[in-house]
Amino acid sequence: MEKPEAVLIDGEPVAAEEASVSVLERGFHYGDGLFETIACEAGRPRLLERHLQRLRGGCERLGLAVPTPAVLEEELAGIAHGTSRAIVKLFLTRGSAVMRGYGLTGRERPTRVALRYPWPGLDESAQEQGIRVRLASLRLGENPALAGIKHCNRLEQVLARREWTDPKIAEALLFSSSGALVSGIASNVFLVCDSKLVTPLLDRCGVAGVMRGLVLDIAAAAGLCAQERRLDAADLEQADELFLTNALTGIRPVRELEGAQRPAGPLTRQLQRELAAHLAMRGAEAGRG
Amino acid sequence: MEKPEAVLIDGEPVAAEEASVSVLERGFHYGDGLFETIACEAGRPRLLERHLQRLRGGCERLGLAVPTPAVLEEELAGIAHGTSRAIVKLFLTRGSAVMRGYGLTGRERPTRVALRYPWPGLDESAQEQGIRVRLASLRLGENPALAGIKHCNRLEQVLARREWTDPKIAEALLFSSSGALVSGIASNVFLVCDSKLVTPLLDRCGVAGVMRGLVLDIAAAAGLCAQERRLDAADLEQADELFLTNALTGIRPVRELEGAQRPAGPLTRQLQRELAAHLAMRGAEAGRG
Repeated sequence: MEKPEAVLIDGEPVAAEEASVSVLERGFHYGDGLFETIACEAGRPRLLERHLQRLRGGCERLGLAVPTPAVLEEELAGIAHGTSRAIVKLFLTRGSAVMRGYGLTGRERPTRVALRYPWPGLDESAQEQGIRVRLASLRLGENPALAGIKHCNRLEQVLARREWTDPKIAEALLFSSSGALVSGIASNVFLVCDSKLVTPLLDRCGVAGVMRGLVLDIAAAAGLCAQERRLDAADLEQADELFLTNALTGIRPVRELEGAQRPAGPLTRQLQRELAAHLAMRGAEAGRG
Repeated sequence: MEKPEAVLIDGEPVAAEEASVSVLERGFHYGDGLFETIACEAGRPRLLERHLQRLRGGCERLGLAVPTPAVLEEELAGIAHGTSRAIVKLFLTRGSAVMRGYGLTGRERPTRVALRYPWPGLDESAQEQGIRVRLASLRLGENPALAGIKHCNRLEQVLARREWTDPKIAEALLFSSSGALVSGIASNVFLVCDSKLVTPLLDRCGVAGVMRGLVLDIAAAAGLCAQERRLDAADLEQADELFLTNALTGIRPVRELEGAQRPAGPLTRQLQRELAAHLAMRGAEAGRG
């Protein structure tokens, strides 16, 4: 059982086994909220400004009041404090329903929940050796109103993750209802096609991962031509390199896709080095800060 | 504030103001669950077998253990007992997360929550006079894996309901990403085209409402040609009659769509009479039962 070691509800510490939200919570009724999954290192939330920026974008899209950044920063720093490595899941939901049904009154007060988990037993060799990946049968619905943000309507991901049980398969790639390549279930995907780095546009579905954003920025800073565009199964088939990104696991090369070998190429390795250097530098800056 | 008058959690009565679910609840994290909104009359849940049938279908789709019907029937009868009119919202969710992330372990235990609300101040004249309806800008994503069932991923409905505040507008009609007419936000839609009763196919998105199913059955029993098929904006424009269905509000004619008058026609009125007769007969049977 992976249970949280610490819980904050609206900033207040609560014993993990007693931590709860109202049965009127619209997060429970409708998935009416947002979340962030944040890696913490040396007692500090990593890539925090990127997480908070995405959360802010989600608030604007859903019409949720944007929390004061200093409040969130203080809470997250507090819950991460004293750990060497940890994961913090932050939820920001619409709060208790003021009236029954989908409609809003303007008097809803958001709920903030922060859960700190121990760092999981991730396969640390995956960054070096790569992971095995399958293609999901489920196709993602397309809705620009919800695309890009990390909202709490995640049944598609739950169902896609139910498609296999083989523990040697680490992830599945998802296409959208119109046949576009979108992402993994809990990761974004990058391809190297004709020596160019590309990743799917996320204007119709998918989550714009913070690690995806960082990798795009790192690639741009390194003078690599990184492009967001519409990709499909043929692009995936023809790609010379293929890797996945996630805030916790960084860059993982895909070494096998549906049973076919896909060796990690030079661009993937270069980006892994650039990312490691960037994260080490940021970590050192934060340590001095 | 519309607050529940009675709450059951996993069958146990809980004081409404203290009723809560764990912060680990996957219903809260991912909207990983199902719900039913049930009208209760004379202390009895109405159309119960249809609600339980849809819930069962949802369980099969999501891979949730189907609760024993007798257990649900007893709980719902218990919470409705002694009321003259009430609404019961029943949630069945995946339960507390055993591990972090989308994956399931098989050891999750579903959470059942039943909330009884007082009967709302619905506009009872709506069935006679009809309602004003708009067209939503938001388009529904299409995903056959989630179509038809009443799951808890309802951000599309929340966002569509945020598009207007005019209290004289009762509902909005929604199209899908591919341009198909689907439903209202919290209702299904029927059209009369060339003297034939039609309603959108719900194989790509939308919720198959229990009142929709009953109206289709009543129409068939009355020898009316009722068909589920793909419909679009042109069908809506050309329809001779237009009405919405919902488990609480029955059949409501659309008297105005985007400002244009739409008089209730003879087929709508016939179905309203047939429905009223059917519900009265079923109510009398239940009273004797």
